[in-house]
Amino acid sequence: MKIAVDAMGGDYAPAEIVKGIELARDAYPDLDFLLYGKPDQVQPLLHDTTRIELVPASEVIEMGDEPVRAVRRKKDSSIVLAATAVREGRADAFFSAGNTGAVLTAGLLIVGRIKGIDRPGLTTTLPVLRKPDQSSFVMLDVGANADTKPFNVVQYAVMGQYYAQSVMHVANPRIGLLNNGTEADKGDQNHRAIHDALAQMDELNFVGNVESRELLNGAADVVVTDGFTGNATLKAIEGTALSMLKLIKGEIMSGGLGGKIGAGLLKPVFHNVQAAMDYSQYGGAVLLGLKAPVVKTHGSTKAPTVKNTIGQIRELLKTNSAQQLVTYFDQHTDQMAELKATLK
Amino acid sequence: MKIAVDAMGGDYAPAEIVKGIELARDAYPDLDFLLYGKPDQVQPLLHDTTRIELVPASEVIEMGDEPVRAVRRKKDSSIVLAATAVREGRADAFFSAGNTGAVLTAGLLIVGRIKGIDRPGLTTTLPVLRKPDQSSFVMLDVGANADTKPFNVVQYAVMGQYYAQSVMHVANPRIGLLNNGTEADKGDQNHRAIHDALAQMDELNFVGNVESRELLNGAADVVVTDGFTGNATLKAIEGTALSMLKLIKGEIMSGGLGGKIGAGLLKPVFHNVQAAMDYSQYGGAVLLGLKAPVVKTHGSTKAPTVKNTIGQIRELLKTNSAQQLVTYFDQHTDQMAELKATLK
Repeated sequence: MKIAVDAMGGDYAPAEIVKGIELARDAYPDLDFLLYGKPDQVQPLLHDTTRIELVPASEVIEMGDEPVRAVRRKKDSSIVLAATAVREGRADAFFSAGNTGAVLTAGLLIVGRIKGIDRPGLTTTLPVLRKPDQSSFVMLDVGANADTKPFNVVQYAVMGQYYAQSVMHVANPRIGLLNNGTEADKGDQNHRAIHDALAQMDELNFVGNVESRELLNGAADVVVTDGFTGNATLKAIEGTALSMLKLIKGEIMSGGLGGKIGAGLLKPVFHNVQAAMDYSQYGGAVLLGLKAPVVKTHGSTKAPTVKNTIGQIRELLKTNSAQQLVTYFDQHTDQMAELKATLK
Repeated sequence: MKIAVDAMGGDYAPAEIVKGIELARDAYPDLDFLLYGKPDQVQPLLHDTTRIELVPASEVIEMGDEPVRAVRRKKDSSIVLAATAVREGRADAFFSAGNTGAVLTAGLLIVGRIKGIDRPGLTTTLPVLRKPDQSSFVMLDVGANADTKPFNVVQYAVMGQYYAQSVMHVANPRIGLLNNGTEADKGDQNHRAIHDALAQMDELNFVGNVESRELLNGAADVVVTDGFTGNATLKAIEGTALSMLKLIKGEIMSGGLGGKIGAGLLKPVFHNVQAAMDYSQYGGAVLLGLKAPVVKTHGSTKAPTVKNTIGQIRELLKTNSAQQLVTYFDQHTDQMAELKATLK
């Protein structure tokens, strides 16, 4: 299994990317890497080239570049070259911590959609904080599309199911529709239509509507939503968690000696809480619905997250998740055509 | 100033409602109350009837009742009678902790919309956790409408501005549009249209798009959004805050002696954090855009929240907020008609 890596994307690239890839190479003997970047910058960082081939890329798509134009014009960039390697079968997956829009565009335009899938969905893994069975859930779409149609959300459910089976090893994942109430008739006309379509698909373990209040309590294993609401919900969860940790730390620092001693004794507790909220441990965001895994991590990605994300990609490749989706949508062309006509 | 109160709505009604109204009566000598409920249940709870008139209501709209039908059929319910008192000018505002849908329906159908306002917006106050200038912001619509049009969101900005001026005493509130990125061209076509319309309204201090990640950091004083996204965002913030506090408590309880001593020393810190997150201190959710204040609190409301909410209603009445909105929309009929035609 070979992974094409953009060595130049991310705030700490190429140093932390190269370091992470070497960690992953050491951890997973069944993986090979194509590392795309500027040789004069990447070569000196590589300690050991075992199973890592450095491929020269003369251009870099910057964080501020307009995604579609950058992918079209910077033909010799690390992102375009790595995605092209996947398209041409020289690699099995594509990883980057660079410009999100450019990675999604390269995935869509170069790697390409699975036949029958209308829109790929960006998929994130988040923690379930309920003890003792602490686990995780996935949510999609968290922002690949600002303009989602009900039909797309129904397809996300199928994609999320295969993903949860493949990476989270949940045999029969519970699928929930993010809505403004749990009753079947909640939401606008679109959400009622999506709910009814999902309820009729026997192959899905659809548990009905879920509210964003219950996500971290494990209301579902796979939460499907349109890209706009998913993006707002994901960022509200992130922002609230960060603000609360900051608030607690601020309160401790401004407290008296008692507070500081208390803080010292509570250090392991905070460590566990931060670890639970740190969902980079689960890897990156996956653009599901493409012919091969395309995975993106935060711009602030460092080596351990690179390694975890490569582990996640390895699971996707080992279970042949993309091919399973290809087969599913091949076998359900009539059903999908009918759904598309009904739902729009 | 006279407030019509539904004594029967809420999990702890009528006891905690009556207790809260007595607290509010003692705190605000300029307020009078009409208290609607079943006399045999409410009368024994009233210690002192100074400025509180008990008005008999033979019916109660239950939490599980279908809102529109209940408001239409239960003519002698505490919710319908209290809203009718406002409509007929016998009271200046309506408060309830009961069935949310029924309160919103009674507000809309009985109290009535301000002329020129298309849809009322449910408005919540949330804390800004950034120190040292800890404050608050308001967000609307958080769920009165599942199907919001761009024109409605533009009107929410005007309504939110008057509300922030009236209750938060912010002279020139910063107004932000909840979107999936801060750049002006972010979001779908609807959000770009809303952004451009808000940017052109000179009377608004529009600060552009804000992301849900930055809300608790004080990105804006007034955050406007469609009711579906607002509902998902609000519930994600609530759920994350609750889950994190539970997680921290669980970690402490399962820790060793050190953790428990630390927890004891950190008690004041946690107390401050919980107080900061407890937005019931800011009162209830207001259905803005009606001819008089209609305010709803959580079903779990107890006496102190009732008292705080009455204080919030008093501010709305003292500043004549509803009348200011009436005047604004009276003076801007042409502009609103044009916006409605352009935005849909």
